[in-house]
Amino acid sequence: MTSYTAPLRDMRFVLHELFDVTGKLSPLPGFEEVGAEVMDAVLEECAKLCQEVLHPLNQSGDQEGCVFKDGNVTVPKGFKDAYQQYAAGGWCGLTASPEYGGQGLPESLDCLVAEMVGSANLSLGLYPGLTQGTIITLTALGTDEQKNSYLPKLISGEWQGTMCLTEAHAGSDLGLLRTKAAPNKDGSFNISGTKIFISSGEHDLTENIIHLVLARLEDAPEGSRGISMFLVPKVLLKEDGSLGARNNVTAGSIEHKMGMSASVTCVMNFDNAKGWLVGQPHKGLAGMFVMMNKERLFVGGQGISIAELSYQNATAYAKERLQGRAADGVACPDKAADPIIVHPDIRNRLMFSRSIIEAERALSVWTNMQADISHKHPDKSVRQKADDMVGLMTPIVKAASTDFGSEIANSCLQVFGGHGYIREYGMEQMVRDVRITQIYEGTNAIQAMDLVGRKLGLDNGRLYKGWLDEVEETLIRVSGRNDMSEFSGPLRDAVERLKECTQWLFEDAKNDPNSRNAAACDYLRLFSLTVFAWIWTLMAEAAFAKANSSEAFYDTKIHVGLYFMRRVLPQTTGLDSIIRAGSEPMMALTEVAF
Amino acid sequence: MTSYTAPLRDMRFVLHELFDVTGKLSPLPGFEEVGAEVMDAVLEECAKLCQEVLHPLNQSGDQEGCVFKDGNVTVPKGFKDAYQQYAAGGWCGLTASPEYGGQGLPESLDCLVAEMVGSANLSLGLYPGLTQGTIITLTALGTDEQKNSYLPKLISGEWQGTMCLTEAHAGSDLGLLRTKAAPNKDGSFNISGTKIFISSGEHDLTENIIHLVLARLEDAPEGSRGISMFLVPKVLLKEDGSLGARNNVTAGSIEHKMGMSASVTCVMNFDNAKGWLVGQPHKGLAGMFVMMNKERLFVGGQGISIAELSYQNATAYAKERLQGRAADGVACPDKAADPIIVHPDIRNRLMFSRSIIEAERALSVWTNMQADISHKHPDKSVRQKADDMVGLMTPIVKAASTDFGSEIANSCLQVFGGHGYIREYGMEQMVRDVRITQIYEGTNAIQAMDLVGRKLGLDNGRLYKGWLDEVEETLIRVSGRNDMSEFSGPLRDAVERLKECTQWLFEDAKNDPNSRNAAACDYLRLFSLTVFAWIWTLMAEAAFAKANSSEAFYDTKIHVGLYFMRRVLPQTTGLDSIIRAGSEPMMALTEVAF
Repeated sequence: MTSYTAPLRDMRFVLHELFDVTGKLSPLPGFEEVGAEVMDAVLEECAKLCQEVLHPLNQSGDQEGCVFKDGNVTVPKGFKDAYQQYAAGGWCGLTASPEYGGQGLPESLDCLVAEMVGSANLSLGLYPGLTQGTIITLTALGTDEQKNSYLPKLISGEWQGTMCLTEAHAGSDLGLLRTKAAPNKDGSFNISGTKIFISSGEHDLTENIIHLVLARLEDAPEGSRGISMFLVPKVLLKEDGSLGARNNVTAGSIEHKMGMSASVTCVMNFDNAKGWLVGQPHKGLAGMFVMMNKERLFVGGQGISIAELSYQNATAYAKERLQGRAADGVACPDKAADPIIVHPDIRNRLMFSRSIIEAERALSVWTNMQADISHKHPDKSVRQKADDMVGLMTPIVKAASTDFGSEIANSCLQVFGGHGYIREYGMEQMVRDVRITQIYEGTNAIQAMDLVGRKLGLDNGRLYKGWLDEVEETLIRVSGRNDMSEFSGPLRDAVERLKECTQWLFEDAKNDPNSRNAAACDYLRLFSLTVFAWIWTLMAEAAFAKANSSEAFYDTKIHVGLYFMRRVLPQTTGLDSIIRAGSEPMMALTEVAF
Repeated sequence: MTSYTAPLRDMRFVLHELFDVTGKLSPLPGFEEVGAEVMDAVLEECAKLCQEVLHPLNQSGDQEGCVFKDGNVTVPKGFKDAYQQYAAGGWCGLTASPEYGGQGLPESLDCLVAEMVGSANLSLGLYPGLTQGTIITLTALGTDEQKNSYLPKLISGEWQGTMCLTEAHAGSDLGLLRTKAAPNKDGSFNISGTKIFISSGEHDLTENIIHLVLARLEDAPEGSRGISMFLVPKVLLKEDGSLGARNNVTAGSIEHKMGMSASVTCVMNFDNAKGWLVGQPHKGLAGMFVMMNKERLFVGGQGISIAELSYQNATAYAKERLQGRAADGVACPDKAADPIIVHPDIRNRLMFSRSIIEAERALSVWTNMQADISHKHPDKSVRQKADDMVGLMTPIVKAASTDFGSEIANSCLQVFGGHGYIREYGMEQMVRDVRITQIYEGTNAIQAMDLVGRKLGLDNGRLYKGWLDEVEETLIRVSGRNDMSEFSGPLRDAVERLKECTQWLFEDAKNDPNSRNAAACDYLRLFSLTVFAWIWTLMAEAAFAKANSSEAFYDTKIHVGLYFMRRVLPQTTGLDSIIRAGSEPMMALTEVAF
């Protein structure tokens, strides 16, 4: 009963009018061919696949779920066909190296592709989505032999990959993990242990599944400095690269979850499974972060996906459902009641959703464009600056987009009234599906601690100051402009508030070891809203540049931005006060008082 | 896997130490016997039933759900037995008139009973919970014959009741409903139409179900002034009151919902079903509000129920789950990691939950105590004042407790990390179950519009000013006290903010018909937080009075209150700014822009 139309117009605005992505990337080696027309064609092709093939399976996939029997997992009806179309379209290797069969397209395009796929079918999209992490990690750290053996099949989509990190007693605290790796004489290792919460750990979409597994070598130091990464294929390869014997890695069970029922989550048993070291011994966590950073941006994108899908369906319902009359005069005198979009509360939900989604989408593209620059720019200092921006924004994209994703899905469900609670309308699935995005790839509190405890202070605040410089540049450009005053004024106030709050936090942390973590989640939201205010200022600037256009798009864009500045950004005043209350209020009680 | 222990200590604090409920009620006619010991005994008895009988069926009920076959509904295994124990204990008629077999106990006690039942099993509790509305409405509006025929069986729990309001095209806007009532010669009516979203519409818990149905008489005016209420039993009564022929009311189907799977929700078909007018013709909406007001307080209580259950289970997990180390020094050097309750983010979630739950529980008791006074006090002006407070606080109890109920359930799920997303841990069920409470019995936006559009302005602000007088009295009492300064100061600031914001709203509404509804939800939250600040001031005052007690309870209470004042109440500053942005930001765009 839900529907999805890819927001191509807004995507083109972000890519071309807002950031001139092709202008920035096409001078870089490897991106010479990436013009605006290529990008638009890719997006349109993807939109078709999403609308016609992936989305129609979204509700049936949820209802049917994955089935586990005798160690095998069957995905819901239609998923295999749809995935084969997906793989055949080259979508699995969109950003992968052409050397191994990839298309070598930029991340800033891929994040929009992933957004569409996630809107259409979050569960289905997770299978190839996580495989990206495997591809990136092997590309960065694999031996030539590993690359040649595995990358082409992963990139073509013939095989998929997983990340096997979590154990029952080791989630956020991976240093506690116990899975063991014992060396064999042939240079391989025997991996033994049990991993939980393994997305796509076992399924019938592909013939082989390549697991990247964190484990400890026998002589490993304790804690997170004693973790190594291993490649463990479900099916071992013969000399010629074709499929051979089954490896000793099996799914013990699958989880029954709140949502994402069509994406399988497995307990994986490694029983002297044969594996090969990826990267250096004991440096597995560093390797893990190669995939993790990519996946965190990807998961942030999932939050945007569901927010967009929720918004679209709530909007359609709000235009169609008749209840009550407009307070400022009957809108549809010929009907028994007005469509509920006339009511301020409904409008508020739609405008809120939109003002967040559009900012998030732009921020996601901007951050991924920085990733592209950090990978390809010939100038090291430019690469470093871009990489800094990726590092700073990754926790924000991940946590803010998924927290708001849940908030928006819930708010859009509310637009449906009682019908929102009924499965067939599809809204409650969005709420259930998106909920995991606040948890996996590092809970949002972990993201916030990464921002506050690590990224913010890095090299005397280099990342943070680098971003402030960007904002200052924007402010200098637009400050004198009358038309921009409703953006530049609130942005300047918000940035000042953020700066003062950050300063306070650094002072407070000198005397209180709990200070940073106590502030973390509220600070991340304060920071995110300030970043969105900056993004909205840029978007308004780009829209005002088209003030003479007859296309209503630009005027609408400015109004959505004004909504953000007036009715969302003021949240920061409350957050600022809350952060400054410090850790004492939450830490004062002893454990027995709970 | 979840557990529940009734928070009896806190309930006794609220009843006896905070509000002296028995002191206030026992002078009133009908409550002479209601001493503190009676209340405590009732609560303890209820706690046992909830912990031992109702809660163990909560997860199995969710998994099994209700089954619909050939027009009949089977409730999950164990529910019938549990309900029979519930009815046998006299819980169905706790507040009902002794004249018809009820126990005549106060609402202020019943709301705590309902809280426990809801925590233990929200689905099961809804069956008898909604029957309360039927009992109250018949007591208020029924003829003697109706009362004698139906009340004793409803009060004993032998039969249950429903409210049949919503139709497919008429939800929030009941004026659109089409169900028809045609008079018969014997004084009965033939009711025809289809109702949707009817909780407990059909099931096998009881032999008869008494529907209160809104329908239109043939000569009825259009809209909400043409609605009448009818009593339509599932099974017609013989002359002697025993069960006779089946009436023409049947369940057409049941809904598959996000949660509350064990509480059946039916489409009900009335096909010339025999019914009898309850109350005056065309005055059905007024009759509906008799039940609705009770049920709104009840649904607010459901929000508290789930918040409490979530908090308890998150706390237990936080004490047991080992991940990471405390930032201010290792807490458990003998273990591989510290329990996650050492981490500020986890603490923050628990303290937030608790600071809201304890305020909500106290507000719920206070509001229900006002209801008791409004029903029984000999002095009309006292009754009126109490009734004013019930009217003002009902939308707050309903909307704030259920909005926070969802927020807390989600936050407590997050404490479990990935395990929170897995069904067997039970946290995700709480999120799914509580979600409906923000919708049914009037969505929370409807509550907010009731507060802002109706209650606030009533008789020149009589209700609102009456409450401000109460707060002023509190402030005068505690203002000079040093120990109370961290409560009285922020409370005074918050009340001033609320007053100014309210003033602004009244001014703005003079020129903008959308102003009130645009502000409604944010204003309701601002108001709620201010009310909670008042409640916390009262609770701190009561706790400081026991400063010499050796019981840690009082010191803990003060710390939880301080948390609220420092880390929750400051939300009001942001809300104030957002409200003052007015309706323009959300209403500026035309419909086609969406």
